[in-house]
Amino acid sequence: MLRAAAEVFDESGYLGASITKILERAGVTAGAVYFHFRSKEGLARAVILEQAADLQFPEGEGGLQQLLDMTGYLAVEMQRNTLLRAGVRLAVEQGVVGKQEYSIYEWWADRFHQELVVARRKDQLLDGVDEAAFAQLLVAAYTGTQVMSQLSTGRADLPRRIADMWRCLLPALAPASVVSGLRIPEGDTVGAT
Amino acid sequence: MLRAAAEVFDESGYLGASITKILERAGVTAGAVYFHFRSKEGLARAVILEQAADLQFPEGEGGLQQLLDMTGYLAVEMQRNTLLRAGVRLAVEQGVVGKQEYSIYEWWADRFHQELVVARRKDQLLDGVDEAAFAQLLVAAYTGTQVMSQLSTGRADLPRRIADMWRCLLPALAPASVVSGLRIPEGDTVGAT
Repeated sequence: MLRAAAEVFDESGYLGASITKILERAGVTAGAVYFHFRSKEGLARAVILEQAADLQFPEGEGGLQQLLDMTGYLAVEMQRNTLLRAGVRLAVEQGVVGKQEYSIYEWWADRFHQELVVARRKDQLLDGVDEAAFAQLLVAAYTGTQVMSQLSTGRADLPRRIADMWRCLLPALAPASVVSGLRIPEGDTVGAT
Repeated sequence: MLRAAAEVFDESGYLGASITKILERAGVTAGAVYFHFRSKEGLARAVILEQAADLQFPEGEGGLQQLLDMTGYLAVEMQRNTLLRAGVRLAVEQGVVGKQEYSIYEWWADRFHQELVVARRKDQLLDGVDEAAFAQLLVAAYTGTQVMSQLSTGRADLPRRIADMWRCLLPALAPASVVSGLRIPEGDTVGAT
């Protein structure tokens, strides 16, 4: 049901989507939907909050390489994972309907923050780095990069843009000796899951 | 006319806005509007492209301090400059109506890039910095930070978030000796224009 809603929101946007269209896609009765979600807005909210439900983050030992791999994986998933794509789109376009759902941005910031805490523990970070502030910056930079990639190439260049983002950001996070040992995902290798 | 349109788009969003509402606000005849802009979409496009028309960027000698002052000024203007606010909102929510207007993002990237080129000439940047890539990152980080600030506090904390952004980014741009001589605008002083 959530996936049917995500498909319709992804294709038509919030205002173009209708409960009828979503029901046709999902093949369930209106009663069941309203019981679970109350309204189109409830469904949109669920898609925003559950945007990461179909993700399988790359496993690893944690720290900076895992953070890089995670964002590279997300860049590729944005091109093929409908729930993620619709959830991100609805989260960015919330002004459209006056919904205010900020918690998903905090969820992503916490997720990135966890990896930065591991990186700190592994002595990968420069002394002055504020892990919480940097996690917020990562969410912001990722969000803005995604908007720009969507508008310029329909997200085709998102993995390349995220790689460029990291080349700019890493010198602020880690000493050169650590940076030289990291592999920045460029989209091609990450896509081969 | 553009300012009337910006006010209505800012209050109601693209889909909530109507030509009638905009005309009432502007007090002109429909004929004149259609002659200039053809449609609501034409007006929205003009507001996106002219979002910076009412800005008066801080003057300075160029380089990193001017770049910081410029972004601090923008953070304050986002709270009171309707044309900027509506233009940014429409640029982020373009998915809503399938409009694709990427050139305003390139315009901002060029604007930031100019200052980075001056900073390079003044020997303010670290050797490895790619000025063009960093300008793109700045636009992305600014865009995402703006979205997050809008959702979390109605943009009240945007100047503080932009200051945090710079504290994270500057070590990737400039050596510590340069960073220590820069003043990061925190919103309070910049607001006193």
